[in-house]
Amino acid sequence: MSDRDSGKGDGGGAHLHRLVLFSDAVFAIAITLLAIEIHPPHAWNGIGDLFAKMGVKLWAYAISFAVVGIYWMSHRRIFERLRAANGVLDVLNFLVLALVALLPLGTELLWEQHGGQALPIYVGLVAAIGVAIALLWAYAAFIGGLAEPTPKAEALYVMLRVALLPGFMCGLSFFSLVYPWGWAVMAAILLGLRWLNGWVARLSRAEAAA
Amino acid sequence: MSDRDSGKGDGGGAHLHRLVLFSDAVFAIAITLLAIEIHPPHAWNGIGDLFAKMGVKLWAYAISFAVVGIYWMSHRRIFERLRAANGVLDVLNFLVLALVALLPLGTELLWEQHGGQALPIYVGLVAAIGVAIALLWAYAAFIGGLAEPTPKAEALYVMLRVALLPGFMCGLSFFSLVYPWGWAVMAAILLGLRWLNGWVARLSRAEAAA
Amino acid sequence: MSDRDSGKGDGGGAHLHRLVLFSDAVFAIAITLLAIEIHPPHAWNGIGDLFAKMGVKLWAYAISFAVVGIYWMSHRRIFERLRAANGVLDVLNFLVLALVALLPLGTELLWEQHGGQALPIYVGLVAAIGVAIALLWAYAAFIGGLAEPTPKAEALYVMLRVALLPGFMCGLSFFSLVYPWGWAVMAAILLGLRWLNGWVARLSRAEAAA
Amino acid sequence: MSDRDSGKGDGGGAHLHRLVLFSDAVFAIAITLLAIEIHPPHAWNGIGDLFAKMGVKLWAYAISFAVVGIYWMSHRRIFERLRAANGVLDVLNFLVLALVALLPLGTELLWEQHGGQALPIYVGLVAAIGVAIALLWAYAAFIGGLAEPTPKAEALYVMLRVALLPGFMCGLSFFSLVYPWGWAVMAAILLGLRWLNGWVARLSRAEAAA
Repeated sequence: MSDRDSGKGDGGGAHLHRLVLFSDAVFAIAITLLAIEIHPPHAWNGIGDLFAKMGVKLWAYAISFAVVGIYWMSHRRIFERLRAANGVLDVLNFLVLALVALLPLGTELLWEQHGGQALPIYVGLVAAIGVAIALLWAYAAFIGGLAEPTPKAEALYVMLRVALLPGFMCGLSFFSLVYPWGWAVMAAILLGLRWLNGWVARLSRAEAAA
Repeated sequence: MSDRDSGKGDGGGAHLHRLVLFSDAVFAIAITLLAIEIHPPHAWNGIGDLFAKMGVKLWAYAISFAVVGIYWMSHRRIFERLRAANGVLDVLNFLVLALVALLPLGTELLWEQHGGQALPIYVGLVAAIGVAIALLWAYAAFIGGLAEPTPKAEALYVMLRVALLPGFMCGLSFFSLVYPWGWAVMAAILLGLRWLNGWVARLSRAEAAA
Repeated sequence: MSDRDSGKGDGGGAHLHRLVLFSDAVFAIAITLLAIEIHPPHAWNGIGDLFAKMGVKLWAYAISFAVVGIYWMSHRRIFERLRAANGVLDVLNFLVLALVALLPLGTELLWEQHGGQALPIYVGLVAAIGVAIALLWAYAAFIGGLAEPTPKAEALYVMLRVALLPGFMCGLSFFSLVYPWGWAVMAAILLGLRWLNGWVARLSRAEAAA
Repeated sequence: MSDRDSGKGDGGGAHLHRLVLFSDAVFAIAITLLAIEIHPPHAWNGIGDLFAKMGVKLWAYAISFAVVGIYWMSHRRIFERLRAANGVLDVLNFLVLALVALLPLGTELLWEQHGGQALPIYVGLVAAIGVAIALLWAYAAFIGGLAEPTPKAEALYVMLRVALLPGFMCGLSFFSLVYPWGWAVMAAILLGLRWLNGWVARLSRAEAAA
């Protein structure tokens, strides 16, 4: 199964290229389909009334658009560090895409039952995508040898960040809608991450120089 | 967040390339989905009757197709001037795409309630896309340093044109359907722009030569 | 509007490349959406019954898939002959795509009212796509100077073939379902075309050598 | 029809590239549309109830996602061996894509009537895709001369594997849901294939060296 993929360096590059294009297409379709189930209300009177009737759907659309956007950026950054692809990477990437393609359904769930019940399922789906991308990166960096040379500490940090951050932030956003002090926690985390990013980058450069 | 994007010139080029392909996919899906909610009437008798029953939907389709087409051309022209991408450009581009992906919904709004109520909302959405592209260009040219060297006057002119023209023209088109002398205003504006384009180009060349 | 496109040879190449990718995406979405409105019947008993109930829809799907496929091949062949793109080509290409994106709707029309009424509209839509591609080619070859050097006779032949053949063949196919001797006419035309293709190619080579 | 495709080596390469991108787009759209007809139940109470009500649909989604994924990998591997394209390859590839684009419909069939009736049709559709890819490869390798030089035994093995394996495995999976010892058969087949793959690779190398 992997005899053609692992043998030639160039084949791996072409494989990687086609995998990236395919993933981008799935991300693009999923993000555009987020709005496909939103229809205008049967009757409305004035812009205020229209937005009052469609508000929940438009909010759910905006949130899911941001989620797909953030994961597209994560996916782009992870794949920027890869140098080749193989069959296992294909399968792990399909796992990521299968979860991303469920987001239009998750968004529908969110706006149909905006009591507390749909929220944990939606946040769980968002968190699962992060874990799947982290799995893909962990395989590529630690097992498959598909990534460009990366210091171990940095590779681990990248993995943990993509696995935990988006799901946690998504949950925290919903939490902050009820308890506004959650936004302060989020700002503190983002500032802390900025400092941590710099610290890990310096550490990696030091390790690379050694 | 931007440590990998800003450091390497080449990384920025690959990033830009992937961003363009992703945007094209979203534009292509949004433009094709414009027709997806149009269904044949339950009963019709002869071509004349069919077009009488579907006329409003087909007009709305044609207008929205033209809107997405014009913005695709704007997007292409703006990105032709860019030399690199970064995380902020990603986010601003997602804002553009999120509004473009709402056009199928806006089109449905247009044909369901073709009284005066849906029109300003539709024109507002069209105008908002122009403003979002202008924001992206303003960031790339004036703040992010992502554009090829462009004289300041030209950069400002490009920004204002993409921000104001499409929304204004879209509104003027609907206006002209009621007051036909609006078409003459539109022709005058297009002629004036052609002259202005040439004038700005000459100005830029002069500035570049100086 | 066209100052940036016409000036640089390289810019025209990149423009052409992005236009082709965008068109391919629209073709791909339209061809995949052909099946999206086909749903299983509410109740069915055995494979024979299922196919009896879905037969018309599956036939309409197969025909439209073939139509989009044939036009994708025409589009690919026409664009293989182009060397640059400009704003007018963009607009003409959007006209082609706007008609292609209507094919899912045309297909629905075909299966809902399979009396004689929907047929001429469907064949008319198919023929209109051919005419639009021919317009695009005529502009590129005779007016815009965007095509690679092509002998005039060959350019004219390409134009007429893409304008007339697909629509005529589509109409003839439906005709042949009722009058089976139509298939013989179609075979004769295809054989004649094969001979004509060779004759035009020889003519062009002679003209090029002169 | 094929005068331009067969003559120039480079034209064949560009043709092949565009064909691959187009196919990827169709695969990506089909795989993302698998979830588009899944909607949340009208009422549900707790996560357990939600999954109980949506379980069949989510299983059908997962199976079809795996099917499209496996065929995308087959398609990628087959096309990695090709060096050029022509009109016949286009047509055979459209046959593959037409069947792939029917999978969202097949998936719907699977979850609506999960008695024994829909299963053979679904497995038949999956098997037909494998046969279509095998046809494409057989044409490219044995008739069209479009593949890179491949020993005849290896080419035949590739053809049989892609024609028979996915459909058989899909049928066996459903069988194993009822008779669990089917999973053991599947594991044995996969192990046997791994040994066979190695054996064919050694045979090909020996033939190439001779």
